[in-house]
Amino acid sequence: MKNEINIGLLGFGTVGSGVAKILHEHQQDLQYKLGVNVGIKKVLVKDKAKERETVLDREVFTTDIEEIINDPSIDLIIEVMGGTDEAKVAIERSLLASKGVVTANKDVIAESGLDLLQLADEMKCDLFYEASVGGGIPLIRTMEDGLASDRISAMTGIVNGTTNFILTKMKYENMSYEDALAEATALGFAEADPSADVDGLDAARKMVILASLAFSTQVRLDDVFVRGMKEIQDGDMELASGFGYTMKMVGSAAKNEDGIEVAVEPMLFPDSHPLASVNNEYNAVYIYGAAVGETMFYGPGAGSLPTATSVTADVIAACRNLLLGVNGKRLHVPQHERKVKQASEMYSRYFHRIHVKDEVGVLTKLSAIYSDHGASLATVVQHPNQQDAGEGAEAELIFITHRMSRQQHLDIIEELKQTAQVVGVMSHYRVEGE
Amino acid sequence: MKNEINIGLLGFGTVGSGVAKILHEHQQDLQYKLGVNVGIKKVLVKDKAKERETVLDREVFTTDIEEIINDPSIDLIIEVMGGTDEAKVAIERSLLASKGVVTANKDVIAESGLDLLQLADEMKCDLFYEASVGGGIPLIRTMEDGLASDRISAMTGIVNGTTNFILTKMKYENMSYEDALAEATALGFAEADPSADVDGLDAARKMVILASLAFSTQVRLDDVFVRGMKEIQDGDMELASGFGYTMKMVGSAAKNEDGIEVAVEPMLFPDSHPLASVNNEYNAVYIYGAAVGETMFYGPGAGSLPTATSVTADVIAACRNLLLGVNGKRLHVPQHERKVKQASEMYSRYFHRIHVKDEVGVLTKLSAIYSDHGASLATVVQHPNQQDAGEGAEAELIFITHRMSRQQHLDIIEELKQTAQVVGVMSHYRVEGE
Repeated sequence: MKNEINIGLLGFGTVGSGVAKILHEHQQDLQYKLGVNVGIKKVLVKDKAKERETVLDREVFTTDIEEIINDPSIDLIIEVMGGTDEAKVAIERSLLASKGVVTANKDVIAESGLDLLQLADEMKCDLFYEASVGGGIPLIRTMEDGLASDRISAMTGIVNGTTNFILTKMKYENMSYEDALAEATALGFAEADPSADVDGLDAARKMVILASLAFSTQVRLDDVFVRGMKEIQDGDMELASGFGYTMKMVGSAAKNEDGIEVAVEPMLFPDSHPLASVNNEYNAVYIYGAAVGETMFYGPGAGSLPTATSVTADVIAACRNLLLGVNGKRLHVPQHERKVKQASEMYSRYFHRIHVKDEVGVLTKLSAIYSDHGASLATVVQHPNQQDAGEGAEAELIFITHRMSRQQHLDIIEELKQTAQVVGVMSHYRVEGE
Repeated sequence: MKNEINIGLLGFGTVGSGVAKILHEHQQDLQYKLGVNVGIKKVLVKDKAKERETVLDREVFTTDIEEIINDPSIDLIIEVMGGTDEAKVAIERSLLASKGVVTANKDVIAESGLDLLQLADEMKCDLFYEASVGGGIPLIRTMEDGLASDRISAMTGIVNGTTNFILTKMKYENMSYEDALAEATALGFAEADPSADVDGLDAARKMVILASLAFSTQVRLDDVFVRGMKEIQDGDMELASGFGYTMKMVGSAAKNEDGIEVAVEPMLFPDSHPLASVNNEYNAVYIYGAAVGETMFYGPGAGSLPTATSVTADVIAACRNLLLGVNGKRLHVPQHERKVKQASEMYSRYFHRIHVKDEVGVLTKLSAIYSDHGASLATVVQHPNQQDAGEGAEAELIFITHRMSRQQHLDIIEELKQTAQVVGVMSHYRVEGE
């Protein structure tokens, strides 16, 4: 049996320095838990001369990845360098050099996870990626182990902390979208370019990872239906709130005999739903299992130490496998055929906010459009549009539908837009969790 | 490598029949995941002749445990017979016969968990007990693996579904305690004798298991401070609600350099706290990790299939270990000295509801009692007690304190009771989660 495990750390940013801190602080615990010493032998950085507050010796830092990949004494690579192409190559080369890999890189795993996992199998190495989704929440392990005996039929999750932070500030502090985004940036939750967060791409990547695992299939980014935060119009959140709904940017995934559906979009949840009270930068994923029923896993979705905790949990699992000599023995998981549902096969309730000319017969006309498309209405509210009161006779209509297909929804929106009495379809959202 | 795994199932009640159902329905998945066939070879029951709706062959049922313990082809025992002494002996004998054990028995694990785990180590067998706490929520595995690299400093959890169901009905449907308990019994959540639930003993046992694991120490049932539901007086929940608090029966555990504290009692949480929206028979455990921060795990706390899901997850883990030949290789975990804090070392905020004679100077007198004990008040509300208005001049006082020790709290309550102007101390609760 080995008597020490040497780690090569690729990247020393927020997460990398957090991992170094946790490994150092828990050295004694790890020694107890694993029976051997676990240490960071080399750290890949861009600038060796940079001043760093760290307990690591200066000589472990290197700018040359070859020093790490070619070091036979290094057993395990932690990839927290970020980015895509370079990181993917680093993971591949590490596996090809028979080193286990722990990564927090959602972009690479969403894009090439299955290929990399297959390479890991061939090289008899572990490839763990707990920190790629849900920061400090042990989601991947829970789905692989804890719910191993259950069939997951659906998931809905708040998997992007930045957008949840913005929505929380808008709801509870009446902030504008711009002010809330500025605060998120100032606090370090949002990137300098926040588009991947607010447009839903970050959440879509995470849903690709979760859905691929949950449904044992290969979901691709193109399969995900994405609507960003810019779809949310002024007043929508207050309006929804009046109906007892909370707006959340949510990733959803579901599977039945007709296929899978994965989406990221602003959605409305009843205020009493557990996801409605997940606030600020926190993440939570609600999982529906055939046997277990409904479970939810909640925690910090990002941040140095939470993410580093997940990375370190993977490191411990990988070390344990190395010590027991069972590294890379991932048990065989069948890959199912992936059939992505059409819009006509995805069902939900919908919330429509429509501005109309305040004329006789408008409601009759519009409700006929719904029934012509086979959709039935659960709630109808009409009130004068006060903002436009001076400019002409307009009214605002809110329709909340019963379940219908996304295609029906899209067809209805399209027809509404072409209806003479309709001034504009202001906004529309899926309603879930009831 | 083995090409099949045979299971001996002890008990065929709610959980046992659920396990048989899940193992049968997932036979193909399990075959894929483990590469071998997993089957139930024998089932211990009390009455062999009883009619059972099951896919299992009649001949697997036996009333003689020797047939199971002495069957060398049985690799793994699932103990879901319930009870204490008999079940403990069955687990011991199984381990001594070199069979791995999966159990859902919180009573045995709370009472003898550490001894049994030690025996399992000596016999190189696995002993898993995920289903003993939190039904379908993968809590034990999360704490052992997912948060392996973190130090857990505190936990608060709704770990008893019956009392949570009763409190939910009382809060949202204005049911009386008696009616809510009757409904819980009718729905099968509460036992015929519900005292273990409503008096807090069931939750205390679960907290013993969780705290022992979280703090790597041996917590005993005697260490747990317990107050049952009978402490809740009429009107308390509405009163608390007026201050923005939700009443929950909660288990709490915390550890710092002064020692550990474990309690089960009705507590007040701000309505915005995630635990406040855990309703009906659902359980949830809120975990505070030094690095990860706050995480919460939510799900069904009981029921045949949820509990059976946890049992089956343990079975898969045990089978995997058997197949990889690493069964019983629990990594060494240090057992820390257990020092249980005194009441003078446990700090919290408190909510006091006091009926007083409506005389001049009462508030001055009572507030002096708090300051004499070094306690400071955050909120004071006085209003006439309308219920007793006809009988005499009485008033109701609500005090919400800043943090103080449980000893201060108890001393203040004692002195209040002996104060002439005090008609009665109606109720008092810890306030947490702020």
